[in-house]
Amino acid sequence: MPHVSINSEEPGIRGLFVYSPETARPLNALAEVLLRGDNTLTRGERELIAAYVSGLNECRYCTASHAAFAAAQLPEGMPLVDQVRADADGAPISDKLRALLAIAAAVQESGRKVTGALVESAKAQGATDREIHDTVLIAAAFCMFNRYVDGLDTHAPDDPAVYATAAEHIVTNGYVPRPGQTW
Amino acid sequence: MPHVSINSEEPGIRGLFVYSPETARPLNALAEVLLRGDNTLTRGERELIAAYVSGLNECRYCTASHAAFAAAQLPEGMPLVDQVRADADGAPISDKLRALLAIAAAVQESGRKVTGALVESAKAQGATDREIHDTVLIAAAFCMFNRYVDGLDTHAPDDPAVYATAAEHIVTNGYVPRPGQTW
Repeated sequence: MPHVSINSEEPGIRGLFVYSPETARPLNALAEVLLRGDNTLTRGERELIAAYVSGLNECRYCTASHAAFAAAQLPEGMPLVDQVRADADGAPISDKLRALLAIAAAVQESGRKVTGALVESAKAQGATDREIHDTVLIAAAFCMFNRYVDGLDTHAPDDPAVYATAAEHIVTNGYVPRPGQTW
Repeated sequence: MPHVSINSEEPGIRGLFVYSPETARPLNALAEVLLRGDNTLTRGERELIAAYVSGLNECRYCTASHAAFAAAQLPEGMPLVDQVRADADGAPISDKLRALLAIAAAVQESGRKVTGALVESAKAQGATDREIHDTVLIAAAFCMFNRYVDGLDTHAPDDPAVYATAAEHIVTNGYVPRPGQTW
């Protein structure tokens, strides 16, 4: 049972969106622009950063969700997501993405952990200012989403099909209300 | 110098808003509803939670900003903000607000640190489900804002007048664009 009565059977953050539509709107607008807006990082790469940070925060619902959303939008699918989550240093990704994930991991600890050396390393691998900015904000945003979901002790389903179905919805429709949702 | 070229002399998150108006919009919409929307927690109390969490995250710009915004909207002003930041357990605030600050402090560490006992304690002091929800989300949101501001190494002015002037703007206009801002 969540810490507060959310009057919804929806799992994770979706129950909180039903409970609090006035905060659901800006939260989803933020996710939409960060994870799906025009960007030189692909949607799959940005969802991978979200899944990676959610894993570091040990947020089971967000990790399963964004791992599924990343897998659905990366050519290499879930095996790559699993490799990155297990060992980002050794995973078969570009050196640029590896450097951005190192920045994301620093942000997960604290904004103050993002050193000039981490930023210079990303730039040396071809990361643009915009990509560094967006990586910091995606990682920071998931430090919020993860705390919101776990701080209210919401339900995280065990069934992988729940997350795969959500991934189909996100890939097709984005972070916008579902039919019948009031926010 | 910030980690990326933001092409703005504005300090802290304001420079990032100029650099990235497409993310500034939902971020400010979130701050507006959380910190200024209709609520049984006063605007001063909610800004106090924001300042307290920003202090725990050691984010100098956000702490100075939201301490000033809280002080401007609490009858007891900055002395109370300073007391809460120095010793929330001993500060002259209601037991309900003290219990909500304890939840906020747990969220600052991790969503998983918010125990049933912390929530029950807040409810025993009269906190509503809505107040607990909003406290968790305010604390979580400042774990994002603090990381965004410090993760990009933005400038935090030393002059308290900068934050007092910002407080006048926020109290009067809220988290909306200033004249001439493009977002």
